[in-house]
Amino acid sequence: MSSQTQPLPDPSSDASDDPALAAFRKSIDNIDAALIHILAERFRITQAVGEYKARASLPPADPQREQRQITRLRKLSEEAELDPEFSEKFLRFIIDEVIHHHEQAQSRSD
Amino acid sequence: MSSQTQPLPDPSSDASDDPALAAFRKSIDNIDAALIHILAERFRITQAVGEYKARASLPPADPQREQRQITRLRKLSEEAELDPEFSEKFLRFIIDEVIHHHEQAQSRSD
Repeated sequence: MSSQTQPLPDPSSDASDDPALAAFRKSIDNIDAALIHILAERFRITQAVGEYKARASLPPADPQREQRQITRLRKLSEEAELDPEFSEKFLRFIIDEVIHHHEQAQSRSD
Repeated sequence: MSSQTQPLPDPSSDASDDPALAAFRKSIDNIDAALIHILAERFRITQAVGEYKARASLPPADPQREQRQITRLRKLSEEAELDPEFSEKFLRFIIDEVIHHHEQAQSRSD
């Protein structure tokens, strides 16, 4: 390695003593708080969708809708320089949780 | 069921014909675009962290930091009425991806 742009800590020290790392972690913590609040709002909406689908006797899962969501998010991810494979895994992770909620709502309305 | 607050579609019709569902889905699509862009920014920061850790010979994973993040996000989730179990699963899902990136950065610097 020919150059170092930031001073490096003693490798034996605790990572938490490192001011550069602490600054990165502050930004990550702010972003995570934003993610949690946006996810809370997303689940508020999908909870309403679940209740609506249960009343309307619509099936909890909609594979065609999911495929359209995946295609759109992969495209958005490319524009944002996020790995499209990761964004597809992420959406499936969220949708699996939503379908689980919908199935619970459906079983309560039966 | 004693009352219905919204008109219900013919259950045999396609879910995509339903205007109430279409309105919910528009909100979900807006939220998902926000999530993708925030996640892209989070991975930009963790990529910088990975490169910094590789240069500083710090280990990719930091179990104590992860435990602090989980405790904090569970608390934030409760305030936002999001299932704390889900938020912990979500953070682990993201951290697993970050550690995978850090290991790749570490192996490139060896």
